Amino acid sequence: MEKIKIKFPDGSVKEFDKGITGYQIAESISRRLADEALAIKINGRVRELNVPLTEYAEVQILTFDDEEGKEVYWHSSSHLMAHAIQSLHPEAKFGVGPAIENGFYYDFDINTQLSEDDLRKIEEKMITIAGENHPFERVELPKEKAIEFFSKKGDQYKLEILSELDDKNEVISIYNEGDFTDLCTGPHLPSTGKIKYVKLLSVSGSYWRGDEKNKQLQRIYGISFPKKKMLDEYLQKLEEAKRRDHRKLGRELEIFLITNNVGPGLPIWLPKGTILRETLENFLKEEQRKRGYLPVITPHIGNINLYKTSGHYPYYKDSQFPPIKFEEGNEEYLLKPMNCPHHFQIYASKSRSYRDLPIRYAEFGTVYRYEQSGELNGLTRVRCFSVDDSHIFVRQDQLKDEVCNVIELIQVVFNQMGFKEFTTQLSFRDDNVEKYGGDLSLWDKAQQEIKEAADMMGLNYIIEEGEAAFYGPKIDFMVKDALGRKWQLGTVQIDYVMPERFNLEYIGSDGQKHRPVVIHRAPFGSLERFIGVLIEHYAGEFPLWLAPVQVAVLPISQNYFDYATEVYNAFKQNGIRAELDDRNEKIGYKIRDWETKKVKYMVIVGEKEKENKTVSVRQHKEGDKGSLGISEFIDKIAAEIKNKS
Amino acid sequence: MEKIKIKFPDGSVKEFDKGITGYQIAESISRRLADEALAIKINGRVRELNVPLTEYAEVQILTFDDEEGKEVYWHSSSHLMAHAIQSLHPEAKFGVGPAIENGFYYDFDINTQLSEDDLRKIEEKMITIAGENHPFERVELPKEKAIEFFSKKGDQYKLEILSELDDKNEVISIYNEGDFTDLCTGPHLPSTGKIKYVKLLSVSGSYWRGDEKNKQLQRIYGISFPKKKMLDEYLQKLEEAKRRDHRKLGRELEIFLITNNVGPGLPIWLPKGTILRETLENFLKEEQRKRGYLPVITPHIGNINLYKTSGHYPYYKDSQFPPIKFEEGNEEYLLKPMNCPHHFQIYASKSRSYRDLPIRYAEFGTVYRYEQSGELNGLTRVRCFSVDDSHIFVRQDQLKDEVCNVIELIQVVFNQMGFKEFTTQLSFRDDNVEKYGGDLSLWDKAQQEIKEAADMMGLNYIIEEGEAAFYGPKIDFMVKDALGRKWQLGTVQIDYVMPERFNLEYIGSDGQKHRPVVIHRAPFGSLERFIGVLIEHYAGEFPLWLAPVQVAVLPISQNYFDYATEVYNAFKQNGIRAELDDRNEKIGYKIRDWETKKVKYMVIVGEKEKENKTVSVRQHKEGDKGSLGISEFIDKIAAEIKNKS
Repeated sequence: MEKIKIKFPDGSVKEFDKGITGYQIAESISRRLADEALAIKINGRVRELNVPLTEYAEVQILTFDDEEGKEVYWHSSSHLMAHAIQSLHPEAKFGVGPAIENGFYYDFDINTQLSEDDLRKIEEKMITIAGENHPFERVELPKEKAIEFFSKKGDQYKLEILSELDDKNEVISIYNEGDFTDLCTGPHLPSTGKIKYVKLLSVSGSYWRGDEKNKQLQRIYGISFPKKKMLDEYLQKLEEAKRRDHRKLGRELEIFLITNNVGPGLPIWLPKGTILRETLENFLKEEQRKRGYLPVITPHIGNINLYKTSGHYPYYKDSQFPPIKFEEGNEEYLLKPMNCPHHFQIYASKSRSYRDLPIRYAEFGTVYRYEQSGELNGLTRVRCFSVDDSHIFVRQDQLKDEVCNVIELIQVVFNQMGFKEFTTQLSFRDDNVEKYGGDLSLWDKAQQEIKEAADMMGLNYIIEEGEAAFYGPKIDFMVKDALGRKWQLGTVQIDYVMPERFNLEYIGSDGQKHRPVVIHRAPFGSLERFIGVLIEHYAGEFPLWLAPVQVAVLPISQNYFDYATEVYNAFKQNGIRAELDDRNEKIGYKIRDWETKKVKYMVIVGEKEKENKTVSVRQHKEGDKGSLGISEFIDKIAAEIKNKS
Repeated sequence: MEKIKIKFPDGSVKEFDKGITGYQIAESISRRLADEALAIKINGRVRELNVPLTEYAEVQILTFDDEEGKEVYWHSSSHLMAHAIQSLHPEAKFGVGPAIENGFYYDFDINTQLSEDDLRKIEEKMITIAGENHPFERVELPKEKAIEFFSKKGDQYKLEILSELDDKNEVISIYNEGDFTDLCTGPHLPSTGKIKYVKLLSVSGSYWRGDEKNKQLQRIYGISFPKKKMLDEYLQKLEEAKRRDHRKLGRELEIFLITNNVGPGLPIWLPKGTILRETLENFLKEEQRKRGYLPVITPHIGNINLYKTSGHYPYYKDSQFPPIKFEEGNEEYLLKPMNCPHHFQIYASKSRSYRDLPIRYAEFGTVYRYEQSGELNGLTRVRCFSVDDSHIFVRQDQLKDEVCNVIELIQVVFNQMGFKEFTTQLSFRDDNVEKYGGDLSLWDKAQQEIKEAADMMGLNYIIEEGEAAFYGPKIDFMVKDALGRKWQLGTVQIDYVMPERFNLEYIGSDGQKHRPVVIHRAPFGSLERFIGVLIEHYAGEFPLWLAPVQVAVLPISQNYFDYATEVYNAFKQNGIRAELDDRNEKIGYKIRDWETKKVKYMVIVGEKEKENKTVSVRQHKEGDKGSLGISEFIDKIAAEIKNKS
């Protein structure tokens, strides 16, 4: 029999019979791998395990440990869910059912509104069908045949998708799995039996194709796993995430408020949130001051011509608030969607010499973007956010050093916040050169220098070609929060295009005019998003230096209100954020109440404390910490605040 | 002869012959008063000195020392100027010519563009005509006669004014003064001879009636005085004001930038201005923190319904930027013209008890108003400004105490800024009750309490009835700057109307719902305006704690750059705002350059300083201050900064 060579991820190459399938390859390695195999990646493309290999290929057997393995698993689970829905609700018409970051969903059209009970029934049915272990069978057929099939089935949504496919002669793939057939490009698991544990999480309304003019379908979100332990862990994490939800905690801890009276996506910072935000701002301001950044403040609107110059208007019009237009005259302003054009005006307001660079303008600049209302989410997706923005103007020969400086600052910020794990993506250009602006030889130099800077600063990075912005390469920082969830926060972007468009110059040592390179950077990214993530990361239990309330003073009864006020004033005079609980409530009630507010320290004062000029200290979640003199305790927490520990 | 009684400002009453004139009364008092008399106030109305008195009256002889005397003097000077213009340019047609705060102007239409030389010629002619001592003669005539007269003269602008007078039978007054006649209600000086010293200051274009659609006339501004010393002093002050002009200093000291690329009236804060502004903000934030204010941050836009509720839209539409409208849907937003509606949302976001009050929300809130472009002026008249705003929610019984607290804070702020002299106006309601909202018996109580608070706090105040806002009485603070010019800065406003409109409530000790009273207050008023005034007040020589650059480090030559850098770093590590002048320039040149930048301290370092680890200190305008050890000097200025001295 003819032989072919197969290369594995570890670099090893083995010979197999031509026509061997992924499943057989897995079997040849180990029984266990064959059991766990979900799909195979052949020359970079994910395929089903029964696809025969006929020539040399680089392959990887995908299991649930691989992101792509999970995707196949969850996508197949969405088919299984549709199958179960069809069994229980034969009139159902189906929209689309993709895998998502965690699990899958399917949109469908049925006449009854599904309840939690219905979800449980569908879940059970899914497990039954999975037990029947139907193989996923791929069938290819001409488009007209496919149309015929779904017409007969009366599946109007599938027909709509089919009708929009450009090429009439295209071959269409459908998948059969028992008595359920779906229009799909695949790939899928070998059979439904691989799906062991299922949890349907929620059902909600969803307009067909996300368009409010279309019919509202029902969408069920679910998740599935090959092992019970995985499902249990996931559900536990979900509970924990719910407990930490920054929208819930933001309300309970009085961090922010969003009201339709002002507008959706326009957060109002309540006093405690403002203290948190300003503490973060002051922390970064001080770090920036040390590093030679120059603070600036610019208006929140700008003449629309600024954005025509930058190219942000009209090209990004849909994600911006509409222009402010006067009835007479042609003056037009835009709520600024970014701070750069304003900062460029400052740079251009006087002549700059090569000796002046780098120039680093920094502003906590509030910008406005019109996110679709369906996209809005607490503080993490908003229409008004404040970027800890800076625009750094450098000579090309200063680029590497400055990128190192910026990375160093971002490392300081992330470490301070306790994001122990973060990863970095270097987003470089690909060979599709017409996508990019500026001098590509400068780009290549910049990319080389970014890589060198990332190495020098010990970043854990991956390089993604084709992910650069049109104006230059960039570095994106992803942090993992306490729940292991990834968030894209800080960013560093090199820009060769805006200096051209805004005609920015400096006089070089040669007496000639040159273009500076611009670095856009933001360690937090947006304060709103960052604080949203922080709330969830800390579950609202902020470290003392950030906490809006650092200590609560609890008199045991009215008799000790005077002494409690004395203690409270001592805190205030020492710049410690204290609250005095002078309610006429039992001390037990007060302690429980302040526990729910997640305030780190409570000091309880009664007869003994008043006599000895002490306070009894309790720590959140840890309880009694004994008695201390007032100034002793103040010194202790002042030190804790100062060390930001 | 019949006698009448006349009462004087000092309360004394004298008897005179019936028909006596103001001039004769002045003569009866003293020769000097008769010489200095310009007009007379009879029962509160300013009249000419030749008006006969025929019954009991309270009178005051007005001289140049009285504001109303000055007004008559300057208004008569504008007639004199028009007379001179007519002599030199017989084709001139005249618009209007009022007295203003300092001097007068006249608008007129002639075919040639006047130059500085022409102003000098008009000045000379004015002095000549003044020397001829023409009396100002009042003639009253029916409207049709007046129209006939100005038609003959071809004075189209006067005819336009006449045509707009409502009552056809009205008696019109004109004033003759030599061969010049003007339409005017008066009053005037007895004769042109009173006008001794004249300076015409500028000529500029001015649309007839301020409307761009009308013809552009020429406007000459001038000033006049009875004594040479007064003119000299005024011109000197004018020179000083020019030297201190915040637009000029703002550019030279790099405080702010206004560019049409962003938009007129939209200041950009340059790094040095941002430091100045943030230092002021931090100062006030700290004072507010001590006094129990709660910081908040709100978006710069709000749903337009907020302003329909408050009544600011559409009623103040003309002074606002137009709404942000979407092509589809009826969502509309407004750039916020004030912060109150946002703060009311915070108050209303939870239930409030009488025990929670006062609640004091504070925000350096940037607001947007569309001032006419002709009104814009540097930082003092802008379209985007940040109010050091607070809204305090109190019970009626807390009002007086809280007004005292607010006054105390404003006093602290003004004293800190070195505004030694400030006056206060209590703006109360008049009897025109339909002008005001809310319960008027509460108003009266509030006015009484404001007065009591003003007394308790030792304010130097006047009461102006009829100057209240429609929503409540207010206190306006006027400071005098170093040149003696008055500026309206801080304000405190009591509000009974907005709590109704926004349905704000608290639960009283009686368990019932009540309305809180709102106090709007801003010690600075607007940061932009305040800093504009500060720049002029200090002539750019800021006290050390506010100065964007506190010390400049000047190495004598390149040999000492290393040591200079060491000194510079020591400053930075101690939080002192330093700049290092490492230019290759002669030390004399550097010193002169830093003198123009008005930086208070320069430290000069050379061989001797390097050896002894010292610095040679120079102080702005005062020169050499001798040698000090580095840390000795740092301690000295750190103390100066801390004391805000």
